[in-house]
Amino acid sequence: MPNKNPKVYDQVIDDIKNKIKSGEIKKGDRLPSERELSESLGVSRTSIREAIRALEVIGLVESRRGAGNYIKTNFEDSLFEPLSVMFMLQESSPREMFDVRESLELQCARLSAKNIQDNELALLAAILDRMYLAESEEESLELDIKFHYIVAKASRNVLLINVLEVISQLMDEFIKKFRMQILHVGNTKESLLEIHENLFRALKSRDEAKVYNAMKEHFNLIRKAYDYDE
Amino acid sequence: MPNKNPKVYDQVIDDIKNKIKSGEIKKGDRLPSERELSESLGVSRTSIREAIRALEVIGLVESRRGAGNYIKTNFEDSLFEPLSVMFMLQESSPREMFDVRESLELQCARLSAKNIQDNELALLAAILDRMYLAESEEESLELDIKFHYIVAKASRNVLLINVLEVISQLMDEFIKKFRMQILHVGNTKESLLEIHENLFRALKSRDEAKVYNAMKEHFNLIRKAYDYDE
Repeated sequence: MPNKNPKVYDQVIDDIKNKIKSGEIKKGDRLPSERELSESLGVSRTSIREAIRALEVIGLVESRRGAGNYIKTNFEDSLFEPLSVMFMLQESSPREMFDVRESLELQCARLSAKNIQDNELALLAAILDRMYLAESEEESLELDIKFHYIVAKASRNVLLINVLEVISQLMDEFIKKFRMQILHVGNTKESLLEIHENLFRALKSRDEAKVYNAMKEHFNLIRKAYDYDE
Repeated sequence: MPNKNPKVYDQVIDDIKNKIKSGEIKKGDRLPSERELSESLGVSRTSIREAIRALEVIGLVESRRGAGNYIKTNFEDSLFEPLSVMFMLQESSPREMFDVRESLELQCARLSAKNIQDNELALLAAILDRMYLAESEEESLELDIKFHYIVAKASRNVLLINVLEVISQLMDEFIKKFRMQILHVGNTKESLLEIHENLFRALKSRDEAKVYNAMKEHFNLIRKAYDYDE
């Protein structure tokens, strides 16, 4: 009866969480072996393996063939699995995702106005230049995504960046590609360029209200294209 | 060698996800038994059990003693586990959580201005009345939380409500109780009442900009108390 107490794996997860909380285990560290965990916690290897699998699915642990289990260093995927299944079960609408994304990007904009560094402004300027020259919708879209990613990173809020990243991945998965393109095409190249140009100028001035308004204008435009299309 | 292919459990999760995506499995449904899943997918019972445990940890499946595995109907907890471990590993600051929370609550405020219903306004009015009469900090704090929860629900965006709920739980876990109380005490009872009164009036007028500004003012006040305390 390996499954006598179905909550044993919870103990194992709690133990690992406590070690993380106390600083004993850090990003990139190797976990004790399954045998060691089994002995130190006094639970079966099966329970240990279940707990580690669960942490793998969550995206917090990665198991390296023959080398053991490691705490990941990159958590961008760790919320995707639960959020995507939740999204499907709740039968949430793309509009709901859009509204969540807007709120996070507006906060990124506000924080970036304070925290953006000169090299990031230079990167944005270079992306803008390439946007003017972009010859395909695909190229424009790719540059657009890069632009927003740099603005997000400039917020210096890792939690915010990660949550935004998951929502963006969700939108990519659930809003069909062609729909994204309609959104993108719905706005003329000129109006998109203007909006990113405004956003860039506002960031350069490091004026929080200006940056916020430029980002809001950006989302209003997408929202309009989106409503029109519904 | 039960662990020959460590990614078998991923197949099982994908299969369950596909069934959810296609609508074949819905909230509250019972999953096929472990034996049935094992046969239909041609993988070991061990892999099936690992996958189900992982979905349990994520908070999407609940296993009922002797009755099998069910898709949960309530997902408020489903993001908590991954987000809290991620939060600890990233060594995020309470300030980072606060900024994420602010962005979500501001969006809730905006959407609630459009979507709040008369019975929700009546509930808020009743809570306000009780806030005026509250005799302990504890009672005020509890009413405060209720007030915000009703505003969040009035947004009618389930995804937004769920993400906000997780961030709030995280703040409860990581910002020590006494700290929350300092934040709360840092603001006089009068100023907190005034802010909630403003928020209520703005919601009653259903004026989006007014509601947004009232919520922003609220967060500015908390942020000031917080900075002061740091």
